[in-house]
Amino acid sequence: MTDHIQFSAERDALLLLDQRILPGREDYFVCANTKDTIYALQTMVVRGAPAIGVTAAYGCYLAAREAAAGAGWRDNLARLLKELENARPTAVNLRWAVEKMRAAWAAEPNLDLLGLQAKWLAMAKDVHARDIEINTAMGRHGALLIDDGDTVMTHCNAGALATAGYGTALGVIRGAWEQGKKIRVIANETRPFLQGARLTAYELHKEGIPVRVACDNACALLMQRGMVQKVVVGADRIAANGDAANKIGTFGVALLARHFGVPFYVAAPASTFDLSMPPGAAIPIEERTPREVTHVGEHQITPPGVDVFNYAFDVTLSELLTGIVTEHGVLRAPYRENIAAIIGAKES
Amino acid sequence: MTDHIQFSAERDALLLLDQRILPGREDYFVCANTKDTIYALQTMVVRGAPAIGVTAAYGCYLAAREAAAGAGWRDNLARLLKELENARPTAVNLRWAVEKMRAAWAAEPNLDLLGLQAKWLAMAKDVHARDIEINTAMGRHGALLIDDGDTVMTHCNAGALATAGYGTALGVIRGAWEQGKKIRVIANETRPFLQGARLTAYELHKEGIPVRVACDNACALLMQRGMVQKVVVGADRIAANGDAANKIGTFGVALLARHFGVPFYVAAPASTFDLSMPPGAAIPIEERTPREVTHVGEHQITPPGVDVFNYAFDVTLSELLTGIVTEHGVLRAPYRENIAAIIGAKES
Repeated sequence: MTDHIQFSAERDALLLLDQRILPGREDYFVCANTKDTIYALQTMVVRGAPAIGVTAAYGCYLAAREAAAGAGWRDNLARLLKELENARPTAVNLRWAVEKMRAAWAAEPNLDLLGLQAKWLAMAKDVHARDIEINTAMGRHGALLIDDGDTVMTHCNAGALATAGYGTALGVIRGAWEQGKKIRVIANETRPFLQGARLTAYELHKEGIPVRVACDNACALLMQRGMVQKVVVGADRIAANGDAANKIGTFGVALLARHFGVPFYVAAPASTFDLSMPPGAAIPIEERTPREVTHVGEHQITPPGVDVFNYAFDVTLSELLTGIVTEHGVLRAPYRENIAAIIGAKES
Repeated sequence: MTDHIQFSAERDALLLLDQRILPGREDYFVCANTKDTIYALQTMVVRGAPAIGVTAAYGCYLAAREAAAGAGWRDNLARLLKELENARPTAVNLRWAVEKMRAAWAAEPNLDLLGLQAKWLAMAKDVHARDIEINTAMGRHGALLIDDGDTVMTHCNAGALATAGYGTALGVIRGAWEQGKKIRVIANETRPFLQGARLTAYELHKEGIPVRVACDNACALLMQRGMVQKVVVGADRIAANGDAANKIGTFGVALLARHFGVPFYVAAPASTFDLSMPPGAAIPIEERTPREVTHVGEHQITPPGVDVFNYAFDVTLSELLTGIVTEHGVLRAPYRENIAAIIGAKES
């Protein structure tokens, strides 16, 4: 599944498989300008840190198409990039992609608008293709951590749909499956947006990888009964000490995994690391619309007038991690040193 | 809220506020015979251990109405009671109520059917009234555990709707509120049946007690941020060592509460204790229909053909409990000794 993010040359637009309505319907949402792209990011037409990065890369190109030629285009474009990079606060990949484009522009400040457009479209396609390569590499490294016969729990969707294709956590699972290991997957449904029930189950079921959905509440019981051998999740941002922001609930799963002695892995590409961030508690946590909690589809579940919490992420402390799977290999504790050595060196 | 279980003399039937469709609609489901009562218990028209006990008590009367007069009525009735007590496996109150009725019958074996009906109806009304008294007493004891300004998390609905009225865990919260303590409540939404989002929020909001709904996934983050001072939950069955079966997810909340140093209380009447049960892991755990997980209302959230888990309960080990609130006072560790001394003595 690598076609959920498509650049259409004919339409000069980005087509995104609308993840809000999966698995019920398979429709594409068309982004023709910055406003469309921001809307798609904010409402989670597309979500998942690496997919957000790829979308933002194309979004820069769309912004450059939108910025009118003439004296003001540089200012216009700078403003559009600023809006784009602020669409969502937690995933570092959004800022990473915009920053990458900005740096390329700064390196060739005399490019005209058409030249910049051509450059950024080529770069976006490269980010897109490279993400699939990165995920495949992560899958290869991570697959070695999974044993034949394991049942692997995952939270949220760190799959093909969360990336350009193949997936981070699900890339590890796909990697093990492709090695012929007889594994089974438990997809935590992942309230409120139900990425596990809707997207992880959809991806894996489509490929014939055995998957069963559990309510997030079942985690302790399933682990107590010895029904989970490994946990693998993705991440939206990883601090220099290894603390990892990921979908709300991940931190709880990690604490339960520690209690029950179940190995807990994060799978994330180097672009997810934000070495400038202080330890995890300071990572900004997005609060999203109450409607995600109060309604499922059109069905309202809470009484009218009752407030809800909708924090979208939490931060899993690195002391709970058994390892972090990256495209460069599996990082182990001490994380600060090993992240600096591997990620710092590759990124600088 | 004490009118959600009503015996109607005119209709000679039990009326149950249909909890499957709250808070959207307030409709009563009519139980005129054993089949109706079993259906209401199994589909969760009525749920919550004490409310199940009260319903089962009336259900015995309805069974006695149904058993045709004549030579065979004793056998018929014995069969109906057997069916009734097997309607759901985990809540001990169902068996407790049927057993109580059976014992009264055994004590007066020569009663004719009309005499038995009259006796059981009076007994059912007594179980009903007594449950409200018990909950009020629990509220009085438990309220002392809650401090002014506390935010109290609860899981599932152990409220008026789970009992004859007032509630067990929510009885403790009501007790503290009635003492003038400025408390706030976090209701975990409690997938899959959403008793927290639908029922706990409905009850408390109706009475003006500040309540906010959180996805079950938010628990670790809310505790990490110091936003939860106490946890109070109900129980469906408590073993002699204090291990407590309650709604799926409770065990996970208790483990997180232990990790973050948040006091964790179970509130349950003496009828919830099952001193004949071995420690908690052996308590039978009901598996319910996949549809509760795959659908919310009419809205399907999982892809067709994907299996799910739907364990309805888990068992919180007594080592995680700060105390057990009963109508006889608050029990503390060592639980085996204190349960034997207080509950064993009162129940024998």
